Amino acid sequence: SKETWQDNKFTGVVTGLAWTAAGGEILFVESGLSKGKGQLSLTGNLGDVMKESAMLALEYLKSHARYLNIDEKAFDEQNVHVHIPEGAIPKDGPSAGITIVTSLASSFTGKKVKARIAMTGEITLRGKVLPVGGIKEKILAAKRAGIREIILPQENKKDIEEIKPIYIDGLTFHYVDEIKEVLNMALEEK
Amino acid sequence: SKETWQDNKFTGVVTGLAWTAAGGEILFVESGLSKGKGQLSLTGNLGDVMKESAMLALEYLKSHARYLNIDEKAFDEQNVHVHIPEGAIPKDGPSAGITIVTSLASSFTGKKVKARIAMTGEITLRGKVLPVGGIKEKILAAKRAGIREIILPQENKKDIEEIKPIYIDGLTFHYVDEIKEVLNMALEEK
Amino acid sequence: SKETWQDNKFTGVVTGLAWTAAGGEILFVESGLSKGKGQLSLTGNLGDVMKESAMLALEYLKSHARYLNIDEKAFDEQNVHVHIPEGAIPKDGPSAGITIVTSLASSFTGKKVKARIAMTGEITLRGKVLPVGGIKEKILAAKRAGIREIILPQENKKDIEEIKPIYIDGLTFHYVDEIKEVLNMALEEK
Amino acid sequence: SKETWQDNKFTGVVTGLAWTAAGGEILFVESGLSKGKGQLSLTGNLGDVMKESAMLALEYLKSHARYLNIDEKAFDEQNVHVHIPEGAIPKDGPSAGITIVTSLASSFTGKKVKARIAMTGEITLRGKVLPVGGIKEKILAAKRAGIREIILPQENKKDIEEIKPIYIDGLTFHYVDEIKEVLNMALEEK
Amino acid sequence: SKETWQDNKFTGVVTGLAWTAAGGEILFVESGLSKGKGQLSLTGNLGDVMKESAMLALEYLKSHARYLNIDEKAFDEQNVHVHIPEGAIPKDGPSAGITIVTSLASSFTGKKVKARIAMTGEITLRGKVLPVGGIKEKILAAKRAGIREIILPQENKKDIEEIKPIYIDGLTFHYVDEIKEVLNMALEEK
Amino acid sequence: SKETWQDNKFTGVVTGLAWTAAGGEILFVESGLSKGKGQLSLTGNLGDVMKESAMLALEYLKSHARYLNIDEKAFDEQNVHVHIPEGAIPKDGPSAGITIVTSLASSFTGKKVKARIAMTGEITLRGKVLPVGGIKEKILAAKRAGIREIILPQENKKDIEEIKPIYIDGLTFHYVDEIKEVLNMALEEK
Ligand SMILES: [Ca+2]
Ligand SMILES: [Ca+2]
Ligand SMILES: [Ca+2]
Ligand SMILES: [Ca+2]
Ligand SMILES: [Ca+2]
Ligand SMILES: [Ca+2]
Ligand SMILES: [Ca+2]
Ligand SMILES: [Ca+2]
Ligand SMILES: [Ca+2]
Ligand SMILES: [Ca+2]
Ligand SMILES: [Ca+2]
Ligand SMILES: [Ca+2]
Repeated sequence: SKETWQDNKFTGVVTGLAWTAAGGEILFVESGLSKGKGQLSLTGNLGDVMKESAMLALEYLKSHARYLNIDEKAFDEQNVHVHIPEGAIPKDGPSAGITIVTSLASSFTGKKVKARIAMTGEITLRGKVLPVGGIKEKILAAKRAGIREIILPQENKKDIEEIKPIYIDGLTFHYVDEIKEVLNMALEEK
Repeated sequence: SKETWQDNKFTGVVTGLAWTAAGGEILFVESGLSKGKGQLSLTGNLGDVMKESAMLALEYLKSHARYLNIDEKAFDEQNVHVHIPEGAIPKDGPSAGITIVTSLASSFTGKKVKARIAMTGEITLRGKVLPVGGIKEKILAAKRAGIREIILPQENKKDIEEIKPIYIDGLTFHYVDEIKEVLNMALEEK
Repeated sequence: SKETWQDNKFTGVVTGLAWTAAGGEILFVESGLSKGKGQLSLTGNLGDVMKESAMLALEYLKSHARYLNIDEKAFDEQNVHVHIPEGAIPKDGPSAGITIVTSLASSFTGKKVKARIAMTGEITLRGKVLPVGGIKEKILAAKRAGIREIILPQENKKDIEEIKPIYIDGLTFHYVDEIKEVLNMALEEK
Repeated sequence: SKETWQDNKFTGVVTGLAWTAAGGEILFVESGLSKGKGQLSLTGNLGDVMKESAMLALEYLKSHARYLNIDEKAFDEQNVHVHIPEGAIPKDGPSAGITIVTSLASSFTGKKVKARIAMTGEITLRGKVLPVGGIKEKILAAKRAGIREIILPQENKKDIEEIKPIYIDGLTFHYVDEIKEVLNMALEEK
Repeated sequence: SKETWQDNKFTGVVTGLAWTAAGGEILFVESGLSKGKGQLSLTGNLGDVMKESAMLALEYLKSHARYLNIDEKAFDEQNVHVHIPEGAIPKDGPSAGITIVTSLASSFTGKKVKARIAMTGEITLRGKVLPVGGIKEKILAAKRAGIREIILPQENKKDIEEIKPIYIDGLTFHYVDEIKEVLNMALEEK
Repeated sequence: SKETWQDNKFTGVVTGLAWTAAGGEILFVESGLSKGKGQLSLTGNLGDVMKESAMLALEYLKSHARYLNIDEKAFDEQNVHVHIPEGAIPKDGPSAGITIVTSLASSFTGKKVKARIAMTGEITLRGKVLPVGGIKEKILAAKRAGIREIILPQENKKDIEEIKPIYIDGLTFHYVDEIKEVLNMALEEK
């Protein structure tokens, strides 16, 4: 079904942008923690590359725990679950990287995500944000869903510049090179 | 075989609604606990997406243990088994989500399930209930089986409104957005 | 080879009824315990659904240990092995459920199995016995093998009523709804 | 290559009989123990059914340890390795069962195997020996290889009676129903 | 996208040279350490042979820890993650061997990698560097990306000698036989 | 690439002989030890049968530790890595058996391997050496590579006798029946 942006009352829930055979769509990345021994569980009919994004995201947070004010024990004494509804739809590819890392950072810091913001971008282990495909379709879906701000990889700026202004009216774009910029932009202070 | 609703003398047994090539059907989700170390076992010829529903359901209960009055140790010191008869039939898809979470909640709280109630709906990690397909066929099967109340995702209300009233005569529908509503509706007080 | 009923000098050996492309056949379910940590091993060229029957059977016994007078430690301090000869023949499906649970109950309680009794039926986690296919062929094979009593699911009674009386002359049928009935019928007191 | 019987200077080495597309052949089952925690390793390009024979053989020895004068600790404090040369040839099927159980019994008891004896037969968990195929071809291969005594399942006696006497001149056959008979026949006293 | 050399502000990031259907390309190998028990994680849509290169690289560092001034505990008390962006592109083959071992050596020693250097070469367990394919295409890609020095296997020197001088103007080549030479060349002193 | 014999300055490096679609070739088996818990790692794009050779080789050394003057703790307190370059080439079959066992024996004893010696032969658990294929092609490759002595299975002697003397001029052959003979021949005293 065609989703719309919902609310930001939960930590760990972040709006992403997907590009499917049927056009652009928004999706939600959810994450949660429970008492455990540091195990990472992934659900939502995810392909191997998308699962790797979650591994990268968690590893990034571990190695930047101090910067993000996360107690290192948090990674050892809790299990992490990442879920991307809807289970009937297979999902893959690296473009949910910044959405997943933002979701996990929200869960580990307890900071909520800014309202009406969505994002797309591949992440790397050292924290860079790489460009992704399907930008035009994703932007149209975001607008339709009531999104107002969009975080994109710096290298995708050229894709936005090729879209007719009328289609992106009312949207604010943030171009980023690094995961740190994403987290600064997307997470609210407590 | 064409099942009918049976009884609610056991905790952990919940009536779900399935949609197969042969039309709608009711199915039973069974769960049980035994002394162990928190392992989750899944049987009944289940596909990966249905297995993920059970992982989500268990994770949801863990992170809402306090709300549901479940001692957190219950998850560490017992194994959980979820079974969906009948073994000869492969089963998959996310639509048994609310049925599985209700079954597990019944097993962990010891609360029985309300008589003659059935349900269908996908769940997410943060506790939302998402719409599912095959509503008309599922409703007809439920009625045939002696069900009187049906829990459905809010977004499936429109599907019920398209069914001729005569087919749903005698059925009460409960539309829900969140897992909490399902559990409040379906579990009896002890 | 065409088996015949053998004897009941061992605990853990139970006669089941199988339905193959070549017609009905009897088969033996064997189980045994050895010092260990509760691991379940399954041999005999078994498919996934048949393996699930063994998981269900063991889980059922664990959750009914008190009713069956089995010390709960028995499950933690021993390994369980279930074997179904003959290794060259792939076997699958849920219909060996009651045969496997009877075999395991015999091994854990030390009670022998009644002489010249055979059985077929799917089991569920809460202990119900579900109907299975190939009844006529299975019954003929049982008779040929020297079986005198047969335990069947209640819902398969109609299949027996359709068989010409002459074919079932000398056979006694026991129809059951629950695993408890099977165990009461099939296990001898010590 | 066409093997011949070799010698019995090692414990754990037993001559079996195989039936391949190219006719009958003898093969050697080797086993050995090393310090460990009870792990079973299987090599020699073995299929799943043949691996199950080794699991069954080890389980049989565990549950008959007292009868065979094996200290139960022997199974916990050593690893067991079963190898069947030659690695380039895939091997499968249940007919090496008695050869494997004899090899393991030799390794665990330290008793050597009788000279110029070979064997074939499926085993079950409770210790029965079941009939196997390819008897004629196997017998011819055994004779060619210098074997003098052959252990066979009782139910394969009829296959021997159909072979022209001249082909089996000089061979002694032992027909068995149970693993115990095999071990009594094949293992030498220390 | 066509990458260019970036910077060497992070340890663990090394520029490699890949040869794809579309021609030569540079790629980045990233590695990082986090508190753990010595587990090696590999992401980036890597094939089995490329994963083996990472296993070899880590094993080489372990057995040369003293030579490289790495405390042996570093391998037991940290997890190692190797990532090669970009996740959408499957990668395989042994030619990233020296790039991966340099990345890991940088992470474990804390030494940064020399600016504007790239490399390609297979590694072996004893530390040799073996020749690889696609040299001409890789060199052209390196030049385009702003690389100034290239480390190559000694046996690939002949491939460079066949390239027209104009194409390699401004590039310095280092031919190596052993991993030690690579590390000496590529890692800066702290 | 066409390898030549290199040197014997490292323990654990042994020259083997392979037979590929392209003719005979020499290959190197490398092994190394690192602090660990007895885990065996195998790299080099190896098939299952070749991996089994390494398992057999390690098991053989464990059960002959005393004979070879290896402290038994060496197997529990170190991990073992076996690598066969070159990663791009899939390798399989049992004929590297004696090469692998010699490599491991060299690593565990610290004894270097004799100069300009190569070998081929399958091993068994009890320490026998079985014949292998492609002898003529392997011998030609060995000569080309500067090898002077070759260890072969006794049963392959007939293959050497069929080669024209001029092709094997300057080569010394050692025919063996058992692994012990291989190790005595190939390992230098310290
Ligand atoms: Ca959607
Ligand atoms: Ca920026
Ligand atoms: Ca049904
Ligand atoms: Ca509602
Ligand atoms: Ca049979
Ligand atoms: Ca009844
Ligand atoms: Ca042979
Ligand atoms: Ca007998
Ligand atoms: Ca690229
Ligand atoms: Ca050099
Ligand atoms: Ca080569
Ligand atoms: Ca010899």
